[in-house]
Amino acid sequence: MSSAAIEKAFEYLNTHKNRFRDELFDWLKIASISAQKEHAADMHQAAQWTLKRCQMAGLKAEIVETDGWPAVLAEGPQQPGRTTVLVYGHYDVQPEGDLKLWHTGPFFPTINEGKIVCRGAADDKGQVFCAILAVEAWMKTAGSLPVNVKFCIEGEEEVGSPNLAKLIKAHKERLACDYVIIHDTAQFGEDAPAVTAATKGLIYKEIILRGPKKDLHSGTFGGVAANPANVLAKVIASFHDENGRVTIPGFYDRVKEMSAEETKMMESLPFDEKAFLADVGSPRAWGEKGYSVLYRRWARPTLDVNGIYGGYMKEGSSTIIPSMAGAKVSMRLVPDQKADEIERLFEETVRARVPDTVTLEINSHARCDPYLADVQSKGMKAARQAVAKGFGKEPVLIREGGSLPILPMLKQVLGADSLMLGYCQPNCNAHSPNEFLHVRDFEAGMRTSAALFGLI
Amino acid sequence: MSSAAIEKAFEYLNTHKNRFRDELFDWLKIASISAQKEHAADMHQAAQWTLKRCQMAGLKAEIVETDGWPAVLAEGPQQPGRTTVLVYGHYDVQPEGDLKLWHTGPFFPTINEGKIVCRGAADDKGQVFCAILAVEAWMKTAGSLPVNVKFCIEGEEEVGSPNLAKLIKAHKERLACDYVIIHDTAQFGEDAPAVTAATKGLIYKEIILRGPKKDLHSGTFGGVAANPANVLAKVIASFHDENGRVTIPGFYDRVKEMSAEETKMMESLPFDEKAFLADVGSPRAWGEKGYSVLYRRWARPTLDVNGIYGGYMKEGSSTIIPSMAGAKVSMRLVPDQKADEIERLFEETVRARVPDTVTLEINSHARCDPYLADVQSKGMKAARQAVAKGFGKEPVLIREGGSLPILPMLKQVLGADSLMLGYCQPNCNAHSPNEFLHVRDFEAGMRTSAALFGLI
Repeated sequence: MSSAAIEKAFEYLNTHKNRFRDELFDWLKIASISAQKEHAADMHQAAQWTLKRCQMAGLKAEIVETDGWPAVLAEGPQQPGRTTVLVYGHYDVQPEGDLKLWHTGPFFPTINEGKIVCRGAADDKGQVFCAILAVEAWMKTAGSLPVNVKFCIEGEEEVGSPNLAKLIKAHKERLACDYVIIHDTAQFGEDAPAVTAATKGLIYKEIILRGPKKDLHSGTFGGVAANPANVLAKVIASFHDENGRVTIPGFYDRVKEMSAEETKMMESLPFDEKAFLADVGSPRAWGEKGYSVLYRRWARPTLDVNGIYGGYMKEGSSTIIPSMAGAKVSMRLVPDQKADEIERLFEETVRARVPDTVTLEINSHARCDPYLADVQSKGMKAARQAVAKGFGKEPVLIREGGSLPILPMLKQVLGADSLMLGYCQPNCNAHSPNEFLHVRDFEAGMRTSAALFGLI
Repeated sequence: MSSAAIEKAFEYLNTHKNRFRDELFDWLKIASISAQKEHAADMHQAAQWTLKRCQMAGLKAEIVETDGWPAVLAEGPQQPGRTTVLVYGHYDVQPEGDLKLWHTGPFFPTINEGKIVCRGAADDKGQVFCAILAVEAWMKTAGSLPVNVKFCIEGEEEVGSPNLAKLIKAHKERLACDYVIIHDTAQFGEDAPAVTAATKGLIYKEIILRGPKKDLHSGTFGGVAANPANVLAKVIASFHDENGRVTIPGFYDRVKEMSAEETKMMESLPFDEKAFLADVGSPRAWGEKGYSVLYRRWARPTLDVNGIYGGYMKEGSSTIIPSMAGAKVSMRLVPDQKADEIERLFEETVRARVPDTVTLEINSHARCDPYLADVQSKGMKAARQAVAKGFGKEPVLIREGGSLPILPMLKQVLGADSLMLGYCQPNCNAHSPNEFLHVRDFEAGMRTSAALFGLI
């Protein structure tokens, strides 16, 4: 496709950018928290919004029900012989977290110092919207699309996409493509746009320990029966050794070190570890011994407690021995760890370490394999060119610490490789209070998506 | 006082027992949870109820404000040369705990299989009410009281009585007495009334660890900074060794073993360990190696997590690294441990064990010394006789695992020994859902209180 056509699309995007921002605000106002059933009405409203906006851009679109929250499937005109891309995104968002830490309401989008601040601004509404707008720009300026474009925008990414594989399999022909385009990663930093080559896998479990059949008076019953919260602490404490390594037997067996070339490229990046840690806010860094902060983020597996609870958690004191205590524990996996295998090793380890003074329940919330792309593919080259055009700067090739369950699954079901183009900043507070997307990155993102359709 | 006069009081109590039960229900309906500020209106209403009921029994009574919740002070006619007793009780109650586990509303008193079921039925409204009713019985049958009776019914026992010492000191002359009578312990079991000789001390702390300045995405930030919940687990896990002993250096230094005589008496009691554990409901017993279950409950110090919290605690999953995690941790102390000393040792140990990858905050919720009574005193003998009369069975002499901060403090300020007469069952669910007091024990309790006034 000619550079002139791309420029026309860019011009359209620039002319309408304020309207696009207002439209994004409408979407962001819908509290589509997939983890919480009380947000069912919001989830359905967000799906409807997505449907209508795809149609308005010139796509054929429909809502497809699943066993959980619905997905939106859409497509432009399909012509044989052209490259076909499937844009994946999600309209669901993380829970708002601690409300006291938000400077503005989590679902009241605001512009603050050039940033769009709202839950979902970066993860993922603000990003996937760029691709929808790119479609509109091509349709309005060229009257058609230069590639075969398809969309799959789901509503369960933040709860581990439990029904997505089934959906993709059921619509395998309809979603067939050469590449999947994902806008759910981040740039490397300010003024450092990136294309991402790998994502981590994820195992998310919940351990629940039960002791006494009810909360007990800690005086009358102290020292008589095991306290589930104390036992839980022992189990969690056992997960790491003194070097920050995970102690689950076999956990590291399949972990692949990065190539010398990739490591060298990583080390050449302008990564300010001190500034990064200041942004995190912890007193000092911590992690597996023997690896740099960036290496650990990119290519080392981790284990974290995501939540812990039990007994009296309110103001003041209550002298009870809790009848139960639980912890949400997740692991991030790297190539070539296998999610199924690590999940089994985790369960075996927990079962072996929990004493018979309490009973154990283990629940599963999410499971996904890590992903590593072929960085030499035609699509990856087009992606890097598109970012260069959209952001006006050559992108760097990076790895992502987050997980995208769709990548290994789509590779398996559709045979398609994924191209990860992230438009937000890495410190955009995805999953944290005050999530944001720079207005300028929102605009560069639209351009990049439009350029990619023209270049791939 | 003649046995005939005591019998007359008993007759009065029997005649009016249904009215007394209805009155108790009115008191129990007031959700006087001292730990939660939103129950302020209930707290004041419960204090007012206490005031009026003391006045109705024939006592002079008034509400005395403190820096926290108010107390009710009351007294009968005082005559020189007679024994003076101070009845201590509390009108505040524990939080209701897990509502799903209650068979009836926590503040809807019900009779079920001969039990009064309600938060506060046993701890402590139902018990201290017995002493108020005993006053009424004497006033109505003898026209006066056979001893000098005083009452102090506070509203902060369940939060560690933070203002009680100040109150007692401020009213030292007015509250002067020979004995303190406490109805806040339990019988040894069904058909085994008891007089209690010792209570445990209590240190209740809260440990709060902070890491990242906000919740972080566990993929992007895993393995980079310490996770406060994982660190907290390590700290809590370190509190016990493999023998169930507390690892705080110096923790056991002042612990006094029970005398051979008391141990022998304890071993002769009809304690069914299997039935006791079945009632607790844990898969099996746990505790410090080398001591029986009963010995551990009576005379070994313990450490328990009362509550633990941090990160995402709701339904489903959220992939965050929590910015903070906390635990409420309490220790029960035995003679001759000193609360101040153990508190200091605990804090020193926690400070030494928390790494500098997180920041540490330690809060205090309660502190009280253990107490051991002189079992040969005139008051203790009268207490045992009164229980024998009221319950129709010789009591056993036992120790209590719970803590009564007032005992060591009153001994110090007023110089008075305490007599502990518990009317409820040890499995009465104090601090748990479905708290209860047998109707028959409520009635035997009234008689015991009336007899004690005649015998002491």
